[in-house]
Amino acid sequence: MRVFGVDCGTEFTGYGVVEVDDSARTPKLRYLCAGAVKLSKKDSTAMRLAQVYSELIALMQLWQPEMVAIEEVFFSANAKSALKLGQVRGVAMLAAANCGLTVAEYAPLSIKSSVVGYGLAAKEQVQFMVARLLELDEAPKPADAADALAIAICHIHHAQTAEMVRR
Amino acid sequence: MRVFGVDCGTEFTGYGVVEVDDSARTPKLRYLCAGAVKLSKKDSTAMRLAQVYSELIALMQLWQPEMVAIEEVFFSANAKSALKLGQVRGVAMLAAANCGLTVAEYAPLSIKSSVVGYGLAAKEQVQFMVARLLELDEAPKPADAADALAIAICHIHHAQTAEMVRR
Repeated sequence: MRVFGVDCGTEFTGYGVVEVDDSARTPKLRYLCAGAVKLSKKDSTAMRLAQVYSELIALMQLWQPEMVAIEEVFFSANAKSALKLGQVRGVAMLAAANCGLTVAEYAPLSIKSSVVGYGLAAKEQVQFMVARLLELDEAPKPADAADALAIAICHIHHAQTAEMVRR
Repeated sequence: MRVFGVDCGTEFTGYGVVEVDDSARTPKLRYLCAGAVKLSKKDSTAMRLAQVYSELIALMQLWQPEMVAIEEVFFSANAKSALKLGQVRGVAMLAAANCGLTVAEYAPLSIKSSVVGYGLAAKEQVQFMVARLLELDEAPKPADAADALAIAICHIHHAQTAEMVRR
């Protein structure tokens, strides 16, 4: 199974691709790529959204994942920032749909629990565990890229649990 | 000038196309089309966003507008509904950008002022004036379609004023 994780943001939108060999006796996570789409504040909102869309579409076509995982958003910030984040999130979900991919959503608590084992873990702990689980010397930069990998790992763990229950 | 207005919503996303003959001595507004993309609650969010995107792209390709006008959103609703609305809005702006069209944003106050002459006008007054300005027997249904026409008319009025100032 190959999963494309997306961490939406109005400045950086992180992405990360993780694979697992389901047929192996002890399935091991494999890091494929991670990075972030950086948006320029000089561009119009529509141009920025077009950039996120075209870069995500190109990455999904390149890496051919079977699934896209994205963070559910709950937050205390104001409605204006929620609207702006929603615009980016809508475009990311559209990119997945237009590549024929299903989108799974995970709450931040669930992502942290899945990667660190503790739902209220600090950002640094998540990054440390992402690097460790994927056998990287250090967590990819920017932090949004590591967060996107965490979301992909979370989906793989959930899918593995669901498979074990099914058996 | 031909303007494509969009009124984003999580259930209905209205659209309306209005044209004006800039070369005429007394420029008259002409109604071209209006309607709404209705989203099914049964579909996943990604599928709903893909539907809005593909229908808007098809309509923009069909009507070949020179400009897209969209409502700026300020509101007191909670962050969750702002995020959902933002997702639809992001996809609508992306559709415009991917058709090579510039997006103009107008605040609700500005739209009402432009159509009714009073920024705090009721929804019914906006609909009545949209029908009157476009010489329609009644305002198009659903209300989201009429609102999209109001946004397009607002852009035309602003462009006409800017042109007069320029001269």
